[in-house]
Amino acid sequence: MDASSRRLVAMRLLVVDGGATGTDVALCVDGRIAARAELPSVKPLRGDLRTDQLCLMLGSFLGTHTAVDEADVMLDGVIVGMAGVWSERERYEYSDAFMSAWTQYVSTDHVPLVLLSDAELLLTSAFGTDVGAVLIGGTGSMMLMRDADGLLQRVGGWGHAVDDAGGGYWLGRRASGAVARMLDGRGPETLLIRPVASLLRVDADDHDAVRNALRRSDPSRMARLAQAVLYYADEGDAAAIEIRQEGARELALLLQNVPANVEVVLYGSLFESQTYRELVERLAARPLPKLHDVIGVLVDRIHRAGQLPTTSV
Amino acid sequence: MDASSRRLVAMRLLVVDGGATGTDVALCVDGRIAARAELPSVKPLRGDLRTDQLCLMLGSFLGTHTAVDEADVMLDGVIVGMAGVWSERERYEYSDAFMSAWTQYVSTDHVPLVLLSDAELLLTSAFGTDVGAVLIGGTGSMMLMRDADGLLQRVGGWGHAVDDAGGGYWLGRRASGAVARMLDGRGPETLLIRPVASLLRVDADDHDAVRNALRRSDPSRMARLAQAVLYYADEGDAAAIEIRQEGARELALLLQNVPANVEVVLYGSLFESQTYRELVERLAARPLPKLHDVIGVLVDRIHRAGQLPTTSV
Repeated sequence: MDASSRRLVAMRLLVVDGGATGTDVALCVDGRIAARAELPSVKPLRGDLRTDQLCLMLGSFLGTHTAVDEADVMLDGVIVGMAGVWSERERYEYSDAFMSAWTQYVSTDHVPLVLLSDAELLLTSAFGTDVGAVLIGGTGSMMLMRDADGLLQRVGGWGHAVDDAGGGYWLGRRASGAVARMLDGRGPETLLIRPVASLLRVDADDHDAVRNALRRSDPSRMARLAQAVLYYADEGDAAAIEIRQEGARELALLLQNVPANVEVVLYGSLFESQTYRELVERLAARPLPKLHDVIGVLVDRIHRAGQLPTTSV
Repeated sequence: MDASSRRLVAMRLLVVDGGATGTDVALCVDGRIAARAELPSVKPLRGDLRTDQLCLMLGSFLGTHTAVDEADVMLDGVIVGMAGVWSERERYEYSDAFMSAWTQYVSTDHVPLVLLSDAELLLTSAFGTDVGAVLIGGTGSMMLMRDADGLLQRVGGWGHAVDDAGGGYWLGRRASGAVARMLDGRGPETLLIRPVASLLRVDADDHDAVRNALRRSDPSRMARLAQAVLYYADEGDAAAIEIRQEGARELALLLQNVPANVEVVLYGSLFESQTYRELVERLAARPLPKLHDVIGVLVDRIHRAGQLPTTSV
C-alpha cells in the first residue's frame, strides 16, 4: 500500500477544538471518531499560551485511548482549532510553542500540524474551502465568512472589553446590570436576581447580601448567567426579554454584510435556546441552521476529501 | 490651654482622598492646607488592601513636610476616604490593616482614624452631616445622598463588570466598540479611531494594526479614552456625540430618585468637559454645580465646626 492510498484507508488524526470554556478532543481513524473527550479550556492567556497544559492533556488522552494491539500508532496529522489564535504572529508563536510542548509531552515523532483559529475550524467543518459563513454564539460572539474570493472576513469577536454584543458574557453582564439597577431603584423588578444571587451564592431575598456580593463579583463568571437570561425570558420576565431581544438584534447585525446567497450556520451554546435561535433567524431574515458536532462533520469531510485541511488565510 | 481649645486653634489633620486613579493627600493645620501631594492610586485590590503602600507614602509625605522647628508634631487625626471601602466588613478589615501599617511605617503614637469611602468623604466635604447628594463621574459613576433621615443612599458605583453607565471606563469601552464596529463594517466611520490607535500605540491609518492591537488591548486602560470621547464629541464626530449623549442620560438617571429639594453637586474628571456637565444638568433638569477641591472644602468645614467628622453609616 503506498502512502497516499494508506491515507485514504486508515488516516489517523487527532482533532482539537479549543474554545473559551472547554477543549473538545477526538482521535479519528478512517473517518470515524475512535475516542473523544471534553477537557478544560486551555485558551491562550495574556502571557501564557498554555500549550504545555494542552499537550500534557493530549499525551494523557492518547496514552489512554490508543489501542495497544495496533502496530502503527503514528498519527497522520494533528488539527488544532484554538480560540485566541488569529493573527499571523499569534499563529506563528502558538505553533512554535505547541510543537515544542508536543515533543516534550507527547511524542518526538514528526507529526504534521494544521493550526487554525477555533472559528476557522468551525468554518472548515461546515463548508470546507467553499463559500460560507458561521455565526458563533458562545461566551463571545462573532461571524466568520469565506467569501467568493476565498478570503476570510470576520465581524465581531473582539472580546468583552471592547465589544461582544449578544454573546454569553454580554447577556450575563446585562443581567447583573439589570439586578444592580433594580437594587438601586432605577430599574424595574426582575426575577434575574435569582440566578445572579445563585451565582454569587447568596440569598436572593437578602438584597444587602446580593448588593455586596455583586459589587465584589468576579467578572469572568458572568457568562454563566447567559442560559438563565434566556430561560427567564422564556418564562416571561420583562428585563430578561429585553436583554434577549437586544442580544438577538446584535447577533443579527453581525450578519449585516453577508450576501444573501451565502449560507450561514449557527454554532454555540446560546443556540441551545430555541427562542434565541429563532429570534436571530427572524431578525437576520435568513435561514440559520445549527451545526451540532464540529469535529464529527470535519472528520467526515476530511475522509471524503482524502486530505488534511490547510491553513487558509 | 486645655485640649478642646487647642483643637480649635491648632488642629493638625492628615486628610487622604483615595480614588481609582490617584491619592490626594494633605497635611492641614488650623484650617489651612500646610502641604499637599498627588500620589498614585492605592485603591484596595481583590486580595490586597494596599495599606502598606499607602502608609509608606504617608510616612514619606509627613517626613518631608513636617516643619522641624515645631515642638508638637503629633497629629490630631487622620481622615481617610478610600475607594472600594464601603460595607461594614470592608471598613473593619481596612481600618485594621491601616492601623497596623500606620504603626509600622508612620508612627507608634496613637492617632484617631476616621475612615470613610471616597464618596462619603466627598459628601461630607460638600454637605457635612446635612442632607445633600453628590454625583461622581470619574473612572466609574455613582450617586451618594444623605437623606432627611440622615441615612446614606447609594445608586450606581457597581464597577465596570456590572454597571458603570456614563463613567470614564464606560465612555472608553463605548469608544473602542465604535471603532471595532467601524473596522467590521457594521458601524459608521468615526474619528475615535485616532485616540484609540494612539492609546494602543499604533498608526490610525493601518487598520490591520488597530484591529490586532484592539483585540489584545488591556481593558483597564479604556478609561483613558474618556476625555477623547468628550473632545471628539465637541468637534462634531457623530459616534462620539452619540456616546456622550447616552452617557449623560445614564448619569442623569442616577439622580432619578433624588428629591427635587435636595442639593446635588458634581465631582470628577469627566465634568471638566463643560458640555458633558451641561448635558447632564439639562437631562436631570436641576442645577448641578461642581465641587472642585474636596480636601480644601472639608478642612475649612472641620475648622469651622471644631471637630472631626464621624463615620456615619
